[in-house]
Amino acid sequence: MNSFGKNIILTSYGESHGKAVGAILDGFPAGFEIDMSYIQSQLDRRKPGQSALTTSRKESDLFDLQSGVFEGKTTGAPIHFQLLNTDAKPKDYDNLKDIYRPSHADFTYEAKYGIRDYRGGGRSSARITAGWVAAGALVQDYLQKKQGVIISSYVSQIGSVLMEDISQKYTQAQVDSSPVRCPIEKTSEQMIQAVNQAKNSKDSLGGVITCVISGVKPGVGNPVFGKLNAHLAHAIMSINATKGFEIGGGFDMASKLGSEVNDSFVKEGDAIKTKSNFSGGIQGGISNGMDIVFRVAFKPTSTIGVEQSTLNTSQDEVILEASGRHDPCIVPRAVPIVETMAALVLGDLII
Amino acid sequence: MNSFGKNIILTSYGESHGKAVGAILDGFPAGFEIDMSYIQSQLDRRKPGQSALTTSRKESDLFDLQSGVFEGKTTGAPIHFQLLNTDAKPKDYDNLKDIYRPSHADFTYEAKYGIRDYRGGGRSSARITAGWVAAGALVQDYLQKKQGVIISSYVSQIGSVLMEDISQKYTQAQVDSSPVRCPIEKTSEQMIQAVNQAKNSKDSLGGVITCVISGVKPGVGNPVFGKLNAHLAHAIMSINATKGFEIGGGFDMASKLGSEVNDSFVKEGDAIKTKSNFSGGIQGGISNGMDIVFRVAFKPTSTIGVEQSTLNTSQDEVILEASGRHDPCIVPRAVPIVETMAALVLGDLII
Amino acid sequence: MNSFGKNIILTSYGESHGKAVGAILDGFPAGFEIDMSYIQSQLDRRKPGQSALTTSRKESDLFDLQSGVFEGKTTGAPIHFQLLNTDAKPKDYDNLKDIYRPSHADFTYEAKYGIRDYRGGGRSSARITAGWVAAGALVQDYLQKKQGVIISSYVSQIGSVLMEDISQKYTQAQVDSSPVRCPIEKTSEQMIQAVNQAKNSKDSLGGVITCVISGVKPGVGNPVFGKLNAHLAHAIMSINATKGFEIGGGFDMASKLGSEVNDSFVKEGDAIKTKSNFSGGIQGGISNGMDIVFRVAFKPTSTIGVEQSTLNTSQDEVILEASGRHDPCIVPRAVPIVETMAALVLGDLII
Amino acid sequence: MNSFGKNIILTSYGESHGKAVGAILDGFPAGFEIDMSYIQSQLDRRKPGQSALTTSRKESDLFDLQSGVFEGKTTGAPIHFQLLNTDAKPKDYDNLKDIYRPSHADFTYEAKYGIRDYRGGGRSSARITAGWVAAGALVQDYLQKKQGVIISSYVSQIGSVLMEDISQKYTQAQVDSSPVRCPIEKTSEQMIQAVNQAKNSKDSLGGVITCVISGVKPGVGNPVFGKLNAHLAHAIMSINATKGFEIGGGFDMASKLGSEVNDSFVKEGDAIKTKSNFSGGIQGGISNGMDIVFRVAFKPTSTIGVEQSTLNTSQDEVILEASGRHDPCIVPRAVPIVETMAALVLGDLII
Repeated sequence: MNSFGKNIILTSYGESHGKAVGAILDGFPAGFEIDMSYIQSQLDRRKPGQSALTTSRKESDLFDLQSGVFEGKTTGAPIHFQLLNTDAKPKDYDNLKDIYRPSHADFTYEAKYGIRDYRGGGRSSARITAGWVAAGALVQDYLQKKQGVIISSYVSQIGSVLMEDISQKYTQAQVDSSPVRCPIEKTSEQMIQAVNQAKNSKDSLGGVITCVISGVKPGVGNPVFGKLNAHLAHAIMSINATKGFEIGGGFDMASKLGSEVNDSFVKEGDAIKTKSNFSGGIQGGISNGMDIVFRVAFKPTSTIGVEQSTLNTSQDEVILEASGRHDPCIVPRAVPIVETMAALVLGDLII
Repeated sequence: MNSFGKNIILTSYGESHGKAVGAILDGFPAGFEIDMSYIQSQLDRRKPGQSALTTSRKESDLFDLQSGVFEGKTTGAPIHFQLLNTDAKPKDYDNLKDIYRPSHADFTYEAKYGIRDYRGGGRSSARITAGWVAAGALVQDYLQKKQGVIISSYVSQIGSVLMEDISQKYTQAQVDSSPVRCPIEKTSEQMIQAVNQAKNSKDSLGGVITCVISGVKPGVGNPVFGKLNAHLAHAIMSINATKGFEIGGGFDMASKLGSEVNDSFVKEGDAIKTKSNFSGGIQGGISNGMDIVFRVAFKPTSTIGVEQSTLNTSQDEVILEASGRHDPCIVPRAVPIVETMAALVLGDLII
Repeated sequence: MNSFGKNIILTSYGESHGKAVGAILDGFPAGFEIDMSYIQSQLDRRKPGQSALTTSRKESDLFDLQSGVFEGKTTGAPIHFQLLNTDAKPKDYDNLKDIYRPSHADFTYEAKYGIRDYRGGGRSSARITAGWVAAGALVQDYLQKKQGVIISSYVSQIGSVLMEDISQKYTQAQVDSSPVRCPIEKTSEQMIQAVNQAKNSKDSLGGVITCVISGVKPGVGNPVFGKLNAHLAHAIMSINATKGFEIGGGFDMASKLGSEVNDSFVKEGDAIKTKSNFSGGIQGGISNGMDIVFRVAFKPTSTIGVEQSTLNTSQDEVILEASGRHDPCIVPRAVPIVETMAALVLGDLII
Repeated sequence: MNSFGKNIILTSYGESHGKAVGAILDGFPAGFEIDMSYIQSQLDRRKPGQSALTTSRKESDLFDLQSGVFEGKTTGAPIHFQLLNTDAKPKDYDNLKDIYRPSHADFTYEAKYGIRDYRGGGRSSARITAGWVAAGALVQDYLQKKQGVIISSYVSQIGSVLMEDISQKYTQAQVDSSPVRCPIEKTSEQMIQAVNQAKNSKDSLGGVITCVISGVKPGVGNPVFGKLNAHLAHAIMSINATKGFEIGGGFDMASKLGSEVNDSFVKEGDAIKTKSNFSGGIQGGISNGMDIVFRVAFKPTSTIGVEQSTLNTSQDEVILEASGRHDPCIVPRAVPIVETMAALVLGDLII
């Protein structure tokens, strides 16, 4: 339930306002020099308070390595990444103790467990992805340095603002030059405007992240229930607030003719490539050497300041008007989380 | 790789033109009276040759129960469903032996395994889903009879023909009254026309299946890597030719405000419901008691009669013009497969 | 429940007197030429009726390959080994329908499932190991040909007759020269006498199998819950009638001083070896390159002709006097099963 | 590799002289009131320095709960038990950096990983079982309070000193009244004498722990690879220094007749029992309601003060004379570890 992967396994623990969040990474190869600053940089891309567009919760999100590394190198033993919660304000949530917030997991957790850590969403909070990102960054670093696999994500849609071309690769610098992580300057500005507008009206916005992965050799992934696309879908749909996943041509292919979207094989130098890439780099569940391209839909943040009617645990109607710290649009901060989950899937299959 | 599930586990085997395809279902509860005709009826919905719109391969798809059932009841032992391949024509594929068909798995299987059963796609053929459907039908029958869970799927899009309302429940009779399994008569007729047009021009079409599941009680699914939506995504993306998965409001939610798509809790008699269902019945990865609604995008059948340029295994360019048996649009036959995978996910979590 | 392994996975199905028993082997590497006669030879070592000392049930135990092999080579797809039950005599068991046979699984299966296939023990019968042995023989063949790993087992004890030296390697020819599979001629004769004596008095005998595995390189096995010895223990204790497992010095080491049983490292040519092998080839759960040596205790066959008092399903006392076909001592036929389970463990970790 | 269990999953991390050791327990039911002092009491039974017979390393082994518990109750989220290493003296091990200690995991870890945390055995140290015991104690407490399952272990052999009757149940008070955890006073005294003698001669001793589990209802465990005895064997053989596992009559049954060791069913009031219990409470891999009885063999502690010849990493012969802190006999401290692993197996299957 709280572990992901078969060969390289991430186990997650922690709650939004408990003592700590963290992750254990098991199965990671021995002898890899750990790049603390790269890991921290990915955490910094996810952490709250990184711009005026994000929640005002202040977490340094500094991680502590508690095991699995000796003299700067991994040993093959499980690696424990721990992040203490330093700006937890559990008291802020006392008023939510008895309320089922709309489109949050309050009701379902209580239905399942009969008990609920209501402080900031408890276990259902996206805060726990900090542990994932720490572990995922290590895998991402390994994939890049040892296998030449580069995972690159960016925000291709926020609200009704869309980027035009969405299957190109961008450098992290290009992506991070924008506070909403959209590499096209003009679109980025429109997105910022949209987020600010939502923020000012105490509302929230959803969006789409596109992920392009290069350097994956042909042959990664397994038939029939171990398909690379199926593992990616599982991984990505495990991220909070995701509502859709599509690979290559995605939903658009439903309305196309076979002759329009079949990817013909062509020779490019010594390599076998496809002319187009509607397959998104995966055929029959196995990589074909082309870029792996997928898109993820995020719903708008469920916490909004707009008045909402809902129920409390006594089943009485109540009016909710959130005043806590939250993001008007979570999508820009989700970029490293998407990369993390993609890295975990690929690491599990390749390393 | 060829098994799915944790508590109720399906293991699949077989190739398109080998001796047999089949599945072992392990973990299914003991003492359940097996309804052979229901299982056969789901197989019949999947089998080739069921209408003029499908491939002309003739397989009766009669299944043989080889274990796990005693005196008409399940015993708790693994249940083996075997389906012999009776209309296999492996010779028909000799000419494809050395060709990488566009958007098929020929190239990737060869890249991975260095060897390939080229007869009709071998292991990568959708023929192997016959075994899944046999096993899935048993689970679906159990869910319906013992848990009141009803899984209903229908074709909501073929090519550019779309149904208008897509999150309603339809009976199987309503769905099957249409050869393309679209319950709205007028849309169904347009879809049939579209398929015929594609068929006549030796081309193929994609489409979308909508699945609506009722009767799932609140509390099914697990945080954080065992989310019901993530398991569904994995299951559905394991089906051949799928390119996208979305739950509830799906990709459309990316362009919405939180205030537009938050699902407020309301009291309905003694039950807690939500006013809208953009969550698609799942919040925080756990069912909330509302209908579970998801949509699946299928690409057009990759096998087309239109001339295509591609490579052979010697990396020479060749012109391919398929003449074998194939479906111009696989989507109608995929309806029971979608139901099967949903049943396996829910059975695994509920039973 | 009915699958074993993580990378190379065996899934078992079938009952003693159902239609068939069999196994699916998933994850086996592609491109391996399948040696049908070797597989059959291991099945022949297990099959009933091979000597006067075994049960008189006649099963040819010919296997049918239904998938995963193309033109004589494995393809990477799951391999289905099917063995039809040809000498099933379910009627012979009608009188046992309502009886809890002592030390059989009748009572526990009924307690667990509320239903029981009473024909010859149903799923709890050792007949189902035929499927295991077919699949295991393929893995054993691969290990020997591709990795130089040789798994050799023999009977080192039957009743109170013990072999003296028990950690030596013997060839299969040496082992099979004896109908009780004890390579020491004089001991073998005493064992045969013991079995015949038990048979004549309608009683049964237990015994011990020793397994010696050579050719495993240092580094196989994983800390801390993936220890090679722990996997072997799990595998071996999955065999019917096993009551004990010990590795290297085993239970005897409990009474020894550290200075007596520590294995000092020594140089032997270029290789690092240990002077003694009380570790049984495994240290810290990981192979050290020395022979892997373990011993397995089997209880006497539970089916005996001697009168026994027990209960029926109405909880009345009944007198049971078995008259069916059974082995006075199952241990000689268990030799290939022990090898199979060892092969599955090593295959899973090495291949 | 570092996780155990399927439904209730323990994930272990940490090294002997790193920052911390710990465990994450996932899948534990929500709403259980956590008994901190019971957990601590099991840790105290395992911790070093508890008597003159154990190592002089001083670890308070106080655990910190970092997640999964809210207002004193479990929430269903993963529970993180962390134990800081406070008396780590890594410098003490600098001289062992290049030495392959006999019967330790130094050589095999290096063979596997190419790198080794040599400080006190690193990951291969039994110190990491502290995390297991913390988590296992919670499960043990639950089993006792909610299911009436009582797991009781004691030392039945040290060196050549054996208890006579070994399948009886003893209270923890009876067991802990002896510093070697043997409940028979006279035998306990002889064991103490044996340990002291080994200690004085700078040597070490092995032994046997017997575990008796009552209160397990019929029907726990699964055919055919999920047998309760197989899971117990796997769990127990995962403990450091174990060399053998036997259930019920164990190895002795190899020399018995069926008529001597078959367990006849008898009525005892309304319950179905067996007259004898050579099955050890398990038949066909499933519990039959009788006490589950198994025995575990431990080798003598590999670290001894006696001079030993061995190799260093340059493959030169060296003389080793250990002077660090270690136990002359680890068996008494292993009692709570055996209980922990039994609790994890049963918790995984029952809860």
